[in-house]
Amino acid sequence: MIVVMNPGATEAQLEHVKKRLEEWGFGTHFSKGVERTVIGVIGPKKAGILESLEAMAGGDKVIPVLQPFKLASREFKNERTQVKVEDVVFGGSKIVIIAGPCAVESEEQMFETARMVKKAGASMLRGGAFKPRTSPYAFQGLEETGLRILADVRREVGIPFVTEVVNPREVDLVAQYADMLQIGARNMQNFTLLKEVGKTDKPVLLKRGLAATIEEWLMAAEYILSEGNYRVVLCERGIRTYETSTRNTLDLSAIPSIQRLSHLPVLADPSHGTGKRYLVASLSKAAVAAGADGLLIEVHPNPETALSDGPQSLNFTEFETLISQIGPVANAVGREI
Amino acid sequence: MIVVMNPGATEAQLEHVKKRLEEWGFGTHFSKGVERTVIGVIGPKKAGILESLEAMAGGDKVIPVLQPFKLASREFKNERTQVKVEDVVFGGSKIVIIAGPCAVESEEQMFETARMVKKAGASMLRGGAFKPRTSPYAFQGLEETGLRILADVRREVGIPFVTEVVNPREVDLVAQYADMLQIGARNMQNFTLLKEVGKTDKPVLLKRGLAATIEEWLMAAEYILSEGNYRVVLCERGIRTYETSTRNTLDLSAIPSIQRLSHLPVLADPSHGTGKRYLVASLSKAAVAAGADGLLIEVHPNPETALSDGPQSLNFTEFETLISQIGPVANAVGREI
Amino acid sequence: MIVVMNPGATEAQLEHVKKRLEEWGFGTHFSKGVERTVIGVIGPKKAGILESLEAMAGGDKVIPVLQPFKLASREFKNERTQVKVEDVVFGGSKIVIIAGPCAVESEEQMFETARMVKKAGASMLRGGAFKPRTSPYAFQGLEETGLRILADVRREVGIPFVTEVVNPREVDLVAQYADMLQIGARNMQNFTLLKEVGKTDKPVLLKRGLAATIEEWLMAAEYILSEGNYRVVLCERGIRTYETSTRNTLDLSAIPSIQRLSHLPVLADPSHGTGKRYLVASLSKAAVAAGADGLLIEVHPNPETALSDGPQSLNFTEFETLISQIGPVANAVGREI
Amino acid sequence: MIVVMNPGATEAQLEHVKKRLEEWGFGTHFSKGVERTVIGVIGPKKAGILESLEAMAGGDKVIPVLQPFKLASREFKNERTQVKVEDVVFGGSKIVIIAGPCAVESEEQMFETARMVKKAGASMLRGGAFKPRTSPYAFQGLEETGLRILADVRREVGIPFVTEVVNPREVDLVAQYADMLQIGARNMQNFTLLKEVGKTDKPVLLKRGLAATIEEWLMAAEYILSEGNYRVVLCERGIRTYETSTRNTLDLSAIPSIQRLSHLPVLADPSHGTGKRYLVASLSKAAVAAGADGLLIEVHPNPETALSDGPQSLNFTEFETLISQIGPVANAVGREI
Repeated sequence: MIVVMNPGATEAQLEHVKKRLEEWGFGTHFSKGVERTVIGVIGPKKAGILESLEAMAGGDKVIPVLQPFKLASREFKNERTQVKVEDVVFGGSKIVIIAGPCAVESEEQMFETARMVKKAGASMLRGGAFKPRTSPYAFQGLEETGLRILADVRREVGIPFVTEVVNPREVDLVAQYADMLQIGARNMQNFTLLKEVGKTDKPVLLKRGLAATIEEWLMAAEYILSEGNYRVVLCERGIRTYETSTRNTLDLSAIPSIQRLSHLPVLADPSHGTGKRYLVASLSKAAVAAGADGLLIEVHPNPETALSDGPQSLNFTEFETLISQIGPVANAVGREI
Repeated sequence: MIVVMNPGATEAQLEHVKKRLEEWGFGTHFSKGVERTVIGVIGPKKAGILESLEAMAGGDKVIPVLQPFKLASREFKNERTQVKVEDVVFGGSKIVIIAGPCAVESEEQMFETARMVKKAGASMLRGGAFKPRTSPYAFQGLEETGLRILADVRREVGIPFVTEVVNPREVDLVAQYADMLQIGARNMQNFTLLKEVGKTDKPVLLKRGLAATIEEWLMAAEYILSEGNYRVVLCERGIRTYETSTRNTLDLSAIPSIQRLSHLPVLADPSHGTGKRYLVASLSKAAVAAGADGLLIEVHPNPETALSDGPQSLNFTEFETLISQIGPVANAVGREI
Repeated sequence: MIVVMNPGATEAQLEHVKKRLEEWGFGTHFSKGVERTVIGVIGPKKAGILESLEAMAGGDKVIPVLQPFKLASREFKNERTQVKVEDVVFGGSKIVIIAGPCAVESEEQMFETARMVKKAGASMLRGGAFKPRTSPYAFQGLEETGLRILADVRREVGIPFVTEVVNPREVDLVAQYADMLQIGARNMQNFTLLKEVGKTDKPVLLKRGLAATIEEWLMAAEYILSEGNYRVVLCERGIRTYETSTRNTLDLSAIPSIQRLSHLPVLADPSHGTGKRYLVASLSKAAVAAGADGLLIEVHPNPETALSDGPQSLNFTEFETLISQIGPVANAVGREI
Repeated sequence: MIVVMNPGATEAQLEHVKKRLEEWGFGTHFSKGVERTVIGVIGPKKAGILESLEAMAGGDKVIPVLQPFKLASREFKNERTQVKVEDVVFGGSKIVIIAGPCAVESEEQMFETARMVKKAGASMLRGGAFKPRTSPYAFQGLEETGLRILADVRREVGIPFVTEVVNPREVDLVAQYADMLQIGARNMQNFTLLKEVGKTDKPVLLKRGLAATIEEWLMAAEYILSEGNYRVVLCERGIRTYETSTRNTLDLSAIPSIQRLSHLPVLADPSHGTGKRYLVASLSKAAVAAGADGLLIEVHPNPETALSDGPQSLNFTEFETLISQIGPVANAVGREI
């Protein structure tokens, strides 16, 4: 930790800061420049210390040197983590394709989609039974009925599924059915929910928040890890920027950035990341080339009648074409699908 | 609703869109320009229609004409709503000052603060018993002990309080103690929590999300209103931008924008909005001049030892000075404190 | 300057960095923590040093401690600068109101506007003769004819004017006519133009760039100051964010932030800052309450027929109302209009 | 164009808008909904009309339906444009690699770099002789000496070069030496400069502005095209967002978005786009997979001593590795290098 003092900080103020730091058990190194004094602070980070130092008279800003995440960091665990969900391995050499509709709408829709995406090469199914929607008047999902449909489909078609959980009270319910729990972008800092899924034995797909920094995202993962659940897979799904031609801006630099900072697998979701069907294929290829461990793709038998997020869903033909294009790119970066 | 078709949309595609719209019960007006056809769609908005239209072949984009919020809109209720919390009236001529520390740390701290802020002119106390913190290792609040302290302080000092609720399961618990429930920025789209506080009879202080548009924010209010709880007060607390010299960018244009679109009272929180103690006074005055119905100010007996958000907390002297400066500005815009 | 080394930096790498720093004439203080080493670097900043250090093997990031601007800083000059343009004083106790249309369209329009805004209380006229427009097909201004109109209006009506210069080659031309030169947001980092206006003896109104940080903005001012022209007035005019309900997000925290870092006067432009006529009055009051030294307001005799930026222009009645509302707010913060 | 009227717009206001539109020669279609009236406006777009309509009493917002760019659009020219610079073809099946240092520092540096990058597979050299720098105290480039060095290198090594022009007065000078003129991000809306390069017969590399929308970027291209210079190549170089872990956020969705809207070739610059050497390889592969027609890569013989942008420059070994990784990705998407 580094404390930068104000240009006009007095000797008494420097002494005061020094004294406090020593009381807290830190070692200190003072560098007095012509205009400012900078204090190097050595010792384990403690909650609240940062804030206290900035609030002290004479203090200007405090710069943390160490990453605030521990269990999620490569300093803690250098080799890449592999997360297994049934036969599916996230973080291995195989690119994992998760596909399916935004929302579970009917048995027929899910059976049809599951059969198709499995055949085309997807190894996991997605579909929301509980939907967090901006409007209270929009379709909110089939809830437990949706979970049952997903479970039926898994049994019949033989494909595991991930589905979103939005309510801490429903974590146990969803965990009874699902192979993997999804935390959506809007809930990335719903810490109550994070702790709850951290207490289950189910793997978790943690989407990046709409305006979350990479550090905040890894801190959200840290919430889950610190409860004892180490099976966390991250998913970049676009961030909010000033650009309006896409729904979000897919931040593919997040993929190698995460891999440099953390051992956790990381996927990309070009469907939500762009919000435009005609951009999904290009960005899927780009994500794999950037090093993504997998893709989350919205597929719907009939995007035009989808109850949510139709404009970003691929139909079956488009999905097959996508898969056929992903393979060569995966091979080009030493992976396969 | 307006449907803009692609430049190359065929007659057959236009017919298909027309047919679907009529099946859904909408009236249509076609405007065929040289390059594109635009369809005016008349009738009540239905969930999912927007998405379906954009996903249709030939469709380019769908532009909603009506505001998606109903109960929160001035079309629904033109006169400004007043929300009463004990003797405090939000949305009246009096600017409501809510003050207190970020987190409840001890009985002594809260008694001292409550007495001081009440004497200086605040009409409500704030203080977090449940703290949503970016890091799992940071101080998470005193929880129910904190609520008990707040209730004791209210009884002894005679000042109502608002406190944050972060978990749908704890809404009843917090509602037993608090005069007003706060939904924090990170939970603005925690729809489960919004519905839960919508079912209580407690007024709700709804902070704007970190990267929420004004429309999304009003939709979050709509979640609470649509459950039957009409006592919602909004609070602008800064949005996330590229600028790093402040913690957030306080968007004061949101104050008159909200007042134009909605009948709900709206406050400003210059403490979180700037993250810098030395900016709080200027932005407080600006918020009142912009028309804010009140202010949320972080005050701590000793910001230097605060367990969270010290750098943005005012000490008692600074708070008294602030209050003395707010009065004349309030008068200048026809309000008082 | 602080150099933060990578967690795995070797002794040899530390030695190498140390050696290079000493060659460059810097003093160094090493703080070796358990995980990382941090180096305090003492001495005058040199161009390119920052980049070199970050690029060295073992180096992670370099954190500048000193502000990069000198002449614009309060360390260089602590007392507030007053910039005089004829009788108008920027940075004094009087709030300076600059008003007029976005673009000079005709003699009639400018005479009518100048007479009206002067009568209502504006002390300076604005109007663009050279217009930087997003589209090459949009009205680009009357050019020198526009300058002549402005000069005629000044002589007859008795009000100085500020007008934008967009081309380094036209700086002398515009300076022959104008009382003050405006650098628009899109040209804030047009360094050629900045240097050129820095060589004139005309005061400069420097608008903040669309996505400029406060530091970059002050560096742009530094370009002008470093050429010997000390009469620079800054103007906040809204920044680009994800919010689409306003044209830009007026960042009023920039006003006190600038005043803390710099001695230069700073205005606000609520017309461009919001892009909405119905928000101008509220944000004008807010800007004055935040401490702005003046306002830039778009006024047009008939906003409906304006050749550019009609939706954000006030008509005469609205401008008079605005002025009548500004006065009491100015008084409330110890200023007058 | 679509005009959305306010909920409370009166019949008289509707009549007024209708009358004005007809005076301007537009056809109109009125769609009267229960809450609002929407007017479809048919006819060629005229400058200033949009603003006028929004400023009319009763008008709420105007939504343009047509793209504002003409010559840059695929409606104007559907087949992809190929831009030739000597033997180099932008927009063909070959991915064009442009490599070199941020700034020309010396003859030795440029000869060494040019030989190396050519050997490794680059077909064009980059290097700045005129550098737009945030600080007036930073290295501003070798200016004409730099241009001479670049020309010498081209002759000896046999590789064409692109270099930035920042001053309208220097366009002719730079055009005498350079094979291709670069407009940097900070000058993307320097319309004077755009018109000036539009008048030359040199191809132009137009970088996206720091916070430019795709539409604004294509409008900047339109400025050049409308002066008669059709050889424009676009370059995505990262946009400004709230994320601080990278220097900018490389928006790879811009690549296929541009290709859908425009016939112009489009490159990516992962060096500026990320600002981090360790991210360049991953994002280069991603850009090619997304469909980029080429890459702009910063390479320096010794990044540690670079006079600008060292932390994002590759050294020779890193560049060779990058090139060897790009080839297979290019092949995977049906291109080659």
